[in-house]
Amino acid sequence: MFSRASLDTAYRDLPVLVTGGLGFIGSNLAIRLVGMGARVTVLDNLNPGQGGNRENLAPVIGDVTLMLADQADREAISEAVRGKAVIFNLAGRVAHFDSIKDPFGDLHSNGTAQLALLEACRALNPETKVVFAGTRSQYGRIVQRPVREDHPQLATDLNGANKAAAERYHAVYHTVHGLRTSSLRLTNTFGPRQLMAHARQGFMNWFTRLAMDGGEILVYGDGAQLRDLVYVDDVVDAFLIAGLDPAADGEAFNIGSGDPVSVRRLAETLVAASGRGAVRSVEYPPDQRPIEIGDYVADITKVRRVLGWSPTVSLEDGIARTIAYFEPRRAVYWDATT
Amino acid sequence: MFSRASLDTAYRDLPVLVTGGLGFIGSNLAIRLVGMGARVTVLDNLNPGQGGNRENLAPVIGDVTLMLADQADREAISEAVRGKAVIFNLAGRVAHFDSIKDPFGDLHSNGTAQLALLEACRALNPETKVVFAGTRSQYGRIVQRPVREDHPQLATDLNGANKAAAERYHAVYHTVHGLRTSSLRLTNTFGPRQLMAHARQGFMNWFTRLAMDGGEILVYGDGAQLRDLVYVDDVVDAFLIAGLDPAADGEAFNIGSGDPVSVRRLAETLVAASGRGAVRSVEYPPDQRPIEIGDYVADITKVRRVLGWSPTVSLEDGIARTIAYFEPRRAVYWDATT
Repeated sequence: MFSRASLDTAYRDLPVLVTGGLGFIGSNLAIRLVGMGARVTVLDNLNPGQGGNRENLAPVIGDVTLMLADQADREAISEAVRGKAVIFNLAGRVAHFDSIKDPFGDLHSNGTAQLALLEACRALNPETKVVFAGTRSQYGRIVQRPVREDHPQLATDLNGANKAAAERYHAVYHTVHGLRTSSLRLTNTFGPRQLMAHARQGFMNWFTRLAMDGGEILVYGDGAQLRDLVYVDDVVDAFLIAGLDPAADGEAFNIGSGDPVSVRRLAETLVAASGRGAVRSVEYPPDQRPIEIGDYVADITKVRRVLGWSPTVSLEDGIARTIAYFEPRRAVYWDATT
Repeated sequence: MFSRASLDTAYRDLPVLVTGGLGFIGSNLAIRLVGMGARVTVLDNLNPGQGGNRENLAPVIGDVTLMLADQADREAISEAVRGKAVIFNLAGRVAHFDSIKDPFGDLHSNGTAQLALLEACRALNPETKVVFAGTRSQYGRIVQRPVREDHPQLATDLNGANKAAAERYHAVYHTVHGLRTSSLRLTNTFGPRQLMAHARQGFMNWFTRLAMDGGEILVYGDGAQLRDLVYVDDVVDAFLIAGLDPAADGEAFNIGSGDPVSVRRLAETLVAASGRGAVRSVEYPPDQRPIEIGDYVADITKVRRVLGWSPTVSLEDGIARTIAYFEPRRAVYWDATT
């Protein structure tokens, strides 16, 4: 098992690829990798509205090879995967409503582009390791809590359905072609560099922005819905460990806190941390109901046991760091179009 | 609940669409619908190697509107779905190895083309009913037998992964857009009009051909692997019932016999029925192992209870009818390229 301490040297001089590396989690991961001395290539298509933002990589822009291309572009992805020891595959769409409005766009990013990466690895770099960013949305409506990895996967939206299929692609390339692939099923990740321009990718970013702007945070119903929040640095650690530990090969892991918090308490914590804003309850909007998954609490027993990972940053700490990051950067994030 | 008897009149003058209607199950369904007096449109792209065959519709070719087009073609599918009361959505690929060799082709047929149909229905015909042809391959490696509809869906090949996603698309269009959709998860269907030109779509067709040609049927290992066979006329009945019964809306059903038979017994039954051929055991081929799903037995409790469907044609009867159909038609089926 890899200890987090040994990570500090393990990536030195290693050629790695981060797809979606201008996005929220991808950029935090790329910055961390640069700090560890890895040779980092970032592939991103800056798909508008998805969270890719050049500002995200500002601290390391001279230290990474940046490829602006669509992951489904066979030529670009072939060039990108060649010679990489580890591939962090975070490119993709994550918005539920967007997937309903633009189903073909979601399938392109979460289906075609995923196959393109795996096919390129199979043909050009079969020894590489691929860590895929899965999502709790794969589970659909929650029927057993806490949610273990063997929970049914009956997604309630197209995004979750495509993500579940993409994870299976990674698993099939492992069993059939021997590729070393893993999937991390992320819950609600939050922190610096998250998309802040709109509310279509979850609620945490939007609540944070509203609090920082002294606005009113609208909580659906009594706000008792449970969510499982993880600070982005912990998620980055999970990717780094899965990228190296052979015990992760062919496996999928929940990445969550295992320590749920109600939506209302989250809103109140944000108001307290920012010293601004207010919380108000509203009726549950009817168009949310069909894709609402119910309370979500990840069971993280497997990733603890197999990879020795568990979260280290408390919700309060994570929120403080997030607000500190965005406070001087409103101009860059509040109206970002990509 | 619809009785089978009431089916005889229920489709009279009804405008219906059968996608993949030149294929094995689609053509049997289209012929039955013509016989019932439905106004039948068939959409098929005659994708080579997938089983579409003009000969399949020979008995009714003057009585159906035949559209030769790709279901992913937005213009063609828009025209096809308009005004249809029921849409039987059987277009798609079903071969496991082919999906590994041509992953983008499988995604096109089982992903993009499925979204195209659902999007066209949402925009142009939201009142229609859509019955999707799912597959037991969605379940992947079997961990509970008999297999109920809530069995995990962790497909072992890309075909199963894409089929599972496509079924979710149908479910999401039901919950989010109110489309009336159902999925029938088919097990091994056999009978007249099946593709007989190659062995890449299961084994039953190939065993039948080998027996009819007096060849040697190779059974892997001891041949004790269990399979669940259903004669095509029974499967057609299931589609017809699901197409009309509102109890099927938003639901997925296993369509199987619930009465498994060993691969060896199947081979022996075919040899006995054709009066030719022989059975021989061989080593399990290594490239089959990673995608082998293990013994399969469908639990058909749900479809019995909700739709009142259960199979009526015995294995021996079905085999006799199948051989009788193909015997004078070797020239048309043995070397078919589409």
